[in-house]
Amino acid sequence: MTAAPLRLGIAGLGTVGVGVLKMIQKNAALITQRTGRAVTVSAVCAQSRGKDRGVDLSGYAWEDDPVVLAKRDDVDVFVELIGGSTGPAKQATQAAIAAGKDVITANKAMLAEHGHSLALSAEAAGRVIRYEAAVAGGIPVVKALTEGLAGNEIQRVLGVMNGSCNYILTRMEDAGMTYEEVFAEADGLGYLEADPNLDVGGIDAAHKLAILAAIAFGTEVDFASVVIEGIGAITIEDIHAAADMGYRVKLLGVAQQTGRGLEQRMTPCLVPANSPLGQLQGGTNMVILEGGDVGQIVLRGAGAGEGPTASAVMSDVVDLARGLRLNTFGQAATGLVKSQPAMTATTAPFYLRLQLLDKPGALAKVAAVMGEAGVSIDRMRQYGHDAEQAPVLIVTHKTTRAAIDQILEDFTKTQVVEGQPVALRIEAV
Amino acid sequence: MTAAPLRLGIAGLGTVGVGVLKMIQKNAALITQRTGRAVTVSAVCAQSRGKDRGVDLSGYAWEDDPVVLAKRDDVDVFVELIGGSTGPAKQATQAAIAAGKDVITANKAMLAEHGHSLALSAEAAGRVIRYEAAVAGGIPVVKALTEGLAGNEIQRVLGVMNGSCNYILTRMEDAGMTYEEVFAEADGLGYLEADPNLDVGGIDAAHKLAILAAIAFGTEVDFASVVIEGIGAITIEDIHAAADMGYRVKLLGVAQQTGRGLEQRMTPCLVPANSPLGQLQGGTNMVILEGGDVGQIVLRGAGAGEGPTASAVMSDVVDLARGLRLNTFGQAATGLVKSQPAMTATTAPFYLRLQLLDKPGALAKVAAVMGEAGVSIDRMRQYGHDAEQAPVLIVTHKTTRAAIDQILEDFTKTQVVEGQPVALRIEAV
Repeated sequence: MTAAPLRLGIAGLGTVGVGVLKMIQKNAALITQRTGRAVTVSAVCAQSRGKDRGVDLSGYAWEDDPVVLAKRDDVDVFVELIGGSTGPAKQATQAAIAAGKDVITANKAMLAEHGHSLALSAEAAGRVIRYEAAVAGGIPVVKALTEGLAGNEIQRVLGVMNGSCNYILTRMEDAGMTYEEVFAEADGLGYLEADPNLDVGGIDAAHKLAILAAIAFGTEVDFASVVIEGIGAITIEDIHAAADMGYRVKLLGVAQQTGRGLEQRMTPCLVPANSPLGQLQGGTNMVILEGGDVGQIVLRGAGAGEGPTASAVMSDVVDLARGLRLNTFGQAATGLVKSQPAMTATTAPFYLRLQLLDKPGALAKVAAVMGEAGVSIDRMRQYGHDAEQAPVLIVTHKTTRAAIDQILEDFTKTQVVEGQPVALRIEAV
Repeated sequence: MTAAPLRLGIAGLGTVGVGVLKMIQKNAALITQRTGRAVTVSAVCAQSRGKDRGVDLSGYAWEDDPVVLAKRDDVDVFVELIGGSTGPAKQATQAAIAAGKDVITANKAMLAEHGHSLALSAEAAGRVIRYEAAVAGGIPVVKALTEGLAGNEIQRVLGVMNGSCNYILTRMEDAGMTYEEVFAEADGLGYLEADPNLDVGGIDAAHKLAILAAIAFGTEVDFASVVIEGIGAITIEDIHAAADMGYRVKLLGVAQQTGRGLEQRMTPCLVPANSPLGQLQGGTNMVILEGGDVGQIVLRGAGAGEGPTASAVMSDVVDLARGLRLNTFGQAATGLVKSQPAMTATTAPFYLRLQLLDKPGALAKVAAVMGEAGVSIDRMRQYGHDAEQAPVLIVTHKTTRAAIDQILEDFTKTQVVEGQPVALRIEAV
């Protein structure tokens, strides 16, 4: 054992940072055995120095400023676990690259919004940025996509990438609770981000999808083009109706190249209840990679939490300790192409829920709107009612999102549809 | 693009070899984009030169002898797709290493039986042996375990690693057919190896398990210590009885370090019907990796076939083209330790099926045998019968395989048990 140790500087000592320190401490011998060298921590930094984090920091130098940490001479790899797409995380990452350090980060927001410029900087400097922890926690999906399936033309990447949303949706079904009740429960249990809209609004999951899409399709990461819709409009009635028809509701991310361009969406969808995605319960994540030769590869595991996320960070640490170096998005950043966004390119059946006023001819008006838009009905259910309005559930034949949006707009003009109808794509998985 | 091409020599042009050539031809631009260099084929070799394989070989030199191919000056990487644990495959692999070539192989038998000595040779020569295609076809499980989870202490590796066996077991359940009927059907469809005992006898899957165990636990690959039991004794009654109790029968591989040593077994087991393993239908493979920090990672995909297996080979090709080089079992081969085999170390509940003669006191004798061996009964069912014997199904409380073996031996002495009883472990997954 004569190889020099790999020296880390870790910025951010929240759940993940502490988890990484614990793994480095307890698995030191194992890591040396597997990499042929020691992995050490030279310095750490966080907002509050005095806080007890349940891990021994006495062996590490302390820095107050992550930018200073990133530039230290005794740091080979800057580990960015601060979070936030801009601010200190980005400044320190840029400083690390400029100072000739490799970077490991768990920061999906930063990569989704600034990944391309950071990749260009890193590659110009001969440095790498690795980020297994940024997507789906402990699941080694970045590695599976970038390396494991690298001989394939990738056809589609899809999955459940936010455990909190999946927890809420499955809890609603299991406990028969409303969205608001489960949301309050999850918030109380600390399952949600400080800004819960990052979770339930689909933004966090959309960050992850945009990163995977860039790797899969060789495009500049393009978070701004992801069609995002949260789960806040999903009712317990939608979940029951979906179950009756053999489906489950999931916040599903899908990225695929179509004849018209790159489709990226993170929206609530119906998936078959007996599919791997349909059977995914609770806070677990699942990502499905579809390649031209390999077919469908399903990856399932914990998408968050101290151990799983730290495990993903350590995967990158071990790679760098072994000398495994890779371009940020799996090819030279200068060769990535701008994607042509195609939001509504592919067709699918849709599930529609609308409140119909109890007026003669109401259903005929709804049917007429759909006919005019060229959308045909596969199945329809009208539930019994004692109020002045009745829920109507419709499953359409295959159509485009554009046609569905047209229908939703026209429904309001009929004067027989109350409130905002819900439209959920039924995804073939 | 100034980097020199990576030049392959491919030995063996069966399904997988042809699939690799097709991928290299059709995805050439993509591979160059992702690796920064061209991947070319200098020469190929197979048994019969004239055969039409549906792929253009005119651009490649032909060799009749894989050893000669392995030593060619214009070959950087020797791709061994011949198969067989000894003979030409091993000779050519050794020749390639001696000639300073890296090796990619799909040969699970060769690695399971000679992996340690090959790894020592390769590492002494500064060369690598990669073998993603040797385990679970298209699923990037070697990479996930060796790299993705490399920061974790691995606790258990388990899974369904032979698609033919899973096809037979699920087809028996779905179609209500006997083992013999489904076996004949699968054989007719070409789903089985030329020697079907490699599949249904559990040997092929055990090869794969031994390889994963070596990576997971840092031990010299030890195929000889794998406890192997095939699926030939499983009846449709076992499958129905398992289903009645909420289980499914799977040929399940399990490797884990226990206090007494390394446990490796490839045997028919019962798993909960609603678990990911229980829900695995048809010829698909599933491998579950359990790490101390990451928890449970489930990987699912096609375990065989031209595209999936070629995809795995190409994953190794792309790694080498990118300069990603790794020790054979994820650490220096000289540091791998000899495992202490512990075949019966862990306890579990067991399912027992026996034919009881219709004699007074018969059940009491069976119960007495179990009591003497210290095995208590959790559940028992005796089925109605009009013959002279009745099937009895027993689920035990947790016990050891040794105690079960003792019971099975003692049952025969009671004179009330007809034929050979079946004992299947119920694995917690």
